[in-house]
Amino acid sequence: MADVLTVQPLSRQAFAPFGEVLETEGAELCMINDGTTERFHALAHAELDPHGTAIVSLFRGQPRSFPYSVTMMERHPLGSQAFYPIDNRPWLVIAAADDDGRPGRPQVFLAHGRQGVNYRANIWHHPLMALNEPSEFLVVDRDGEGSNLEEFTYPEPFVIEGADWSK
Amino acid sequence: MADVLTVQPLSRQAFAPFGEVLETEGAELCMINDGTTERFHALAHAELDPHGTAIVSLFRGQPRSFPYSVTMMERHPLGSQAFYPIDNRPWLVIAAADDDGRPGRPQVFLAHGRQGVNYRANIWHHPLMALNEPSEFLVVDRDGEGSNLEEFTYPEPFVIEGADWSK
Repeated sequence: MADVLTVQPLSRQAFAPFGEVLETEGAELCMINDGTTERFHALAHAELDPHGTAIVSLFRGQPRSFPYSVTMMERHPLGSQAFYPIDNRPWLVIAAADDDGRPGRPQVFLAHGRQGVNYRANIWHHPLMALNEPSEFLVVDRDGEGSNLEEFTYPEPFVIEGADWSK
Repeated sequence: MADVLTVQPLSRQAFAPFGEVLETEGAELCMINDGTTERFHALAHAELDPHGTAIVSLFRGQPRSFPYSVTMMERHPLGSQAFYPIDNRPWLVIAAADDDGRPGRPQVFLAHGRQGVNYRANIWHHPLMALNEPSEFLVVDRDGEGSNLEEFTYPEPFVIEGADWSK
């Protein structure tokens, strides 16, 4: 029988074991630029090993179909990886605690279109999960020499059932 | 008589003296995540002094009114600063070459809603210029100790005339 994963709303508190949530709601702000700009400061902090540099990329993700089988997870030992949606569409964030060098049970978070996340270095996570339509994300991660990708395939997949992701 | 600035479309070539343009158009891409994601890799590179770290913030900018007087410019000696719009609205990018420690004549670029820029460290630029409506931007810049802001006020302002910025 399929091992079905629960989907919970993304929040700073729920995501804290895995990294940072980038959203203006509930964030401190300061006024800059002579009062014309609100700055929600340092919502995410890039982590880099000494040989890495921070880069900004754009990812365009195809939407996933449901029910979806979560079969693999990945992690980046040498740097954090931040995603922020630029199409104002919901998306799924999947992370897992480490269990002796392999990912534990995945935790699934539904992010709305104005929420990004920053996975800390070495946090197990699923590749980008766009919903409904092809969607673009701004990504801040690490470039440089060294092996920065580790993948793990679960012996038995987990399942995310379909839902109305427009909410 | 007012010294009126010309507005030109933002392009990689035109902006090259000041930094990088973040846009998918014309950028190289690679397929990742088992073919589900297009990665437009490293469109911007964060520059940081040895004491700095890269952070991600959100800026919410009020729209400017026109005709607009460009009276001051700023620069960040210790790190680059990248802006990417997340409301898919046009915005203005203003930069200037350095002229013996002060900014030269401003160059004005109209960016469409899917274009960001990364000002290289120490490049003179105008604070964020949103158009039409309050607009949010993802910002990647430098945090850390040290003096990272220099401002300059022009003895005579330059003027940007009004236009239909919806294009």
